[in-house]
Amino acid sequence: MSNQNHKPMTSWVQVPKNSDFTIYNLPFGVFETKRISARAGIAIGDKIVDLSVLHDEGFFSDITQLPNDIFLRNSLNDFIALGKPVTRKVRERVQELLLEEREDLREHQCRGKAMVSRKEAIMLLPVKIGDYTDFYSSMEHATNVGTMFRDPNNALLPNWKHLPVGYHGRASSIIPSGIPITRPKGQFKDPDMESPAFGPSRRLDFELELAFITGKPTKMGESISTEDAEDYIFGFVLFNDWSARDIQAWEYVPLGPFLGKNFASSISPWIVTLEALEFVRLAGPTQDPEVLPYLKCEKEHAFDINLEVYIQPEEKEATKVCTSNYKHMYWNIAQQLAHHTVNGCNINVGDMYASGTISGPTEDSYGSMLELAWKGTKPVQLAGGEERKFIEDGDTVIMKGYSEKDGIRVGFGEVSSKVLPAN
Amino acid sequence: MSNQNHKPMTSWVQVPKNSDFTIYNLPFGVFETKRISARAGIAIGDKIVDLSVLHDEGFFSDITQLPNDIFLRNSLNDFIALGKPVTRKVRERVQELLLEEREDLREHQCRGKAMVSRKEAIMLLPVKIGDYTDFYSSMEHATNVGTMFRDPNNALLPNWKHLPVGYHGRASSIIPSGIPITRPKGQFKDPDMESPAFGPSRRLDFELELAFITGKPTKMGESISTEDAEDYIFGFVLFNDWSARDIQAWEYVPLGPFLGKNFASSISPWIVTLEALEFVRLAGPTQDPEVLPYLKCEKEHAFDINLEVYIQPEEKEATKVCTSNYKHMYWNIAQQLAHHTVNGCNINVGDMYASGTISGPTEDSYGSMLELAWKGTKPVQLAGGEERKFIEDGDTVIMKGYSEKDGIRVGFGEVSSKVLPAN
Repeated sequence: MSNQNHKPMTSWVQVPKNSDFTIYNLPFGVFETKRISARAGIAIGDKIVDLSVLHDEGFFSDITQLPNDIFLRNSLNDFIALGKPVTRKVRERVQELLLEEREDLREHQCRGKAMVSRKEAIMLLPVKIGDYTDFYSSMEHATNVGTMFRDPNNALLPNWKHLPVGYHGRASSIIPSGIPITRPKGQFKDPDMESPAFGPSRRLDFELELAFITGKPTKMGESISTEDAEDYIFGFVLFNDWSARDIQAWEYVPLGPFLGKNFASSISPWIVTLEALEFVRLAGPTQDPEVLPYLKCEKEHAFDINLEVYIQPEEKEATKVCTSNYKHMYWNIAQQLAHHTVNGCNINVGDMYASGTISGPTEDSYGSMLELAWKGTKPVQLAGGEERKFIEDGDTVIMKGYSEKDGIRVGFGEVSSKVLPAN
Repeated sequence: MSNQNHKPMTSWVQVPKNSDFTIYNLPFGVFETKRISARAGIAIGDKIVDLSVLHDEGFFSDITQLPNDIFLRNSLNDFIALGKPVTRKVRERVQELLLEEREDLREHQCRGKAMVSRKEAIMLLPVKIGDYTDFYSSMEHATNVGTMFRDPNNALLPNWKHLPVGYHGRASSIIPSGIPITRPKGQFKDPDMESPAFGPSRRLDFELELAFITGKPTKMGESISTEDAEDYIFGFVLFNDWSARDIQAWEYVPLGPFLGKNFASSISPWIVTLEALEFVRLAGPTQDPEVLPYLKCEKEHAFDINLEVYIQPEEKEATKVCTSNYKHMYWNIAQQLAHHTVNGCNINVGDMYASGTISGPTEDSYGSMLELAWKGTKPVQLAGGEERKFIEDGDTVIMKGYSEKDGIRVGFGEVSSKVLPAN
């Protein structure tokens, strides 16, 4: 039943044309409604399969590793920690049950209870996030930033092509799509100021990223090879790494971003599994100079995922401002995880690893306002005659992501958050 | 019963001379033994008061907010989250029960069970750490580093005196005293190398720090004033921020420390409460230039805490290599927490906030080997004729901390960890 075979599948659940949540996808999430408490689900079309109902009704009775209440917890951590052989079986079972030709769930008395409307669901964080790391793995993004702020002729720093640069971020302020963020206040010092000022950020930005979530822990002192890395990766979400450029610029020397980033990061609530993305796996860019042995890969670890960013001013229509693709990333997930653990740093189930801003080679593929409006020098035009250098109060930023090939579509849905004025 | 009054107290528990764990201290920790599972305790002399036994026997029966199993969890988070009015009552009750003149516990049939020998206990992490932040708040340390690596005449970066510089670190690799660490491997590039090499770090270092732990959460968008900050702080531990200087030097531009730090941080297992340190509160250094209004303090937030670092080579005696004091810190805990949340970043119970390396003004008060041996140019002499530029395999690094005034002593015990060779 795996979609690698490209065996055509259709479901008895009606899946709207261009839905991200086809029978080939089946991402995991945690939801609640006005009537039912937090639980695990799988999205298909405009529905959510309530996994706790299927478990109660015995549809997983042969998967003996599943505790009775495993789908009734408020995060997927314990479920994911059961390991890929178990999570894969659950996903494949749901895929079978949803097939057009299968009647066991379609005709079951529990069907009404098992199939929840996505419109009625409130999506929660899918995992309890232990640690959160942000990489900086797009060469185009790093080059753009280096060109703007340092030297166009030496835009990339000397270490950039030798290791996937990364840093630790704040886990507590990662929130699911739909929750508004508040414009942060902080210190900034423009070049013409004698001393720093304090107030709401004047340069609020998004960063278009994807994040992977680990599903298997290591002990301190252990390292993960590039070959084994994907065994530790459960899946991906869209990640908006909100950034206050003026706060960041003043604070970040010498220890990196802090208050310019840690006020909020927004994620899409459905974890798209590695299995579902298998059909768009491809080779990443050639790496030159050659990387050190622990960063070399035998297999392909890039994925062809279309990415889009929209800005929607208050009570206006949305404008697409960025069209990018995850396949542009210079460093891949296997290299990121191998590097992260090469020093013995231990990882846990539910940890999150964002890619860094995903910019492509063309000007409309840049993954942040900083780059799209080139430091404010080329304002971005929105529908209705508005323009933006950065994000304004009342704007909603929407990111979408999907893969498409041979008539198969697998997508992330969206991460959408509105910006409220500073307190 | 509070020690602010300096009312002399003695206990029926014998407390050795120079013990850090006097009746004035009573720090909280989590321990287990070969016979009993993880639980909360309070240290006094060479004993641990098993709080679960006292609770079972009704000694806290009037503190109605305490759930039955609150002291039988494997972290203090839920207990601390009950709030200072509750945690303070528990600590003061234990203080009363331990007084020389009190017989209720001393003569109780549970005494044997309630008083556990510290020698038999394995100390665990006292809290489940959500997020971990590291500040950089010692002016002497930042000046030393700036002098060595940048410009002695402009050692401090322009932002340093305007805000308490900080960054996010890795929570997963924070371990309690006693657990050895493994020398990390990673990339480094010395100035004379054409391209980076890979191998065990050749410049492994400690950093002498104190860390505070928050005991009260905020919501996203909320900020904490300097005036309210201490309401959110439960107590302190010693913190050894292990650092691989060669890995750090190559990787840290532009996003800060990552693999040079995240392989391990070691903490002392007993949380010394703010209440216990009240008697050594004092004013910190004068801050010039004047700080922005949100960083101004009405009250004193510095503490006079003596700090020491020892290096003990394998099967040799230990040498004290550093004598510092926490009172030297330029930025205080109220300012650190106010700054951390001024942008609306939310905090949780159990989050950890380390001070940054605590260096004093004299050469013997520097809090890292980098500074003590001045980048390897002035090797540190150890007993028995050995010398050290950095930490070698087999070395144990021991940090101690204590406050003393008017015959009262309140201390942290120690954080001690041995360095094992790279895997």
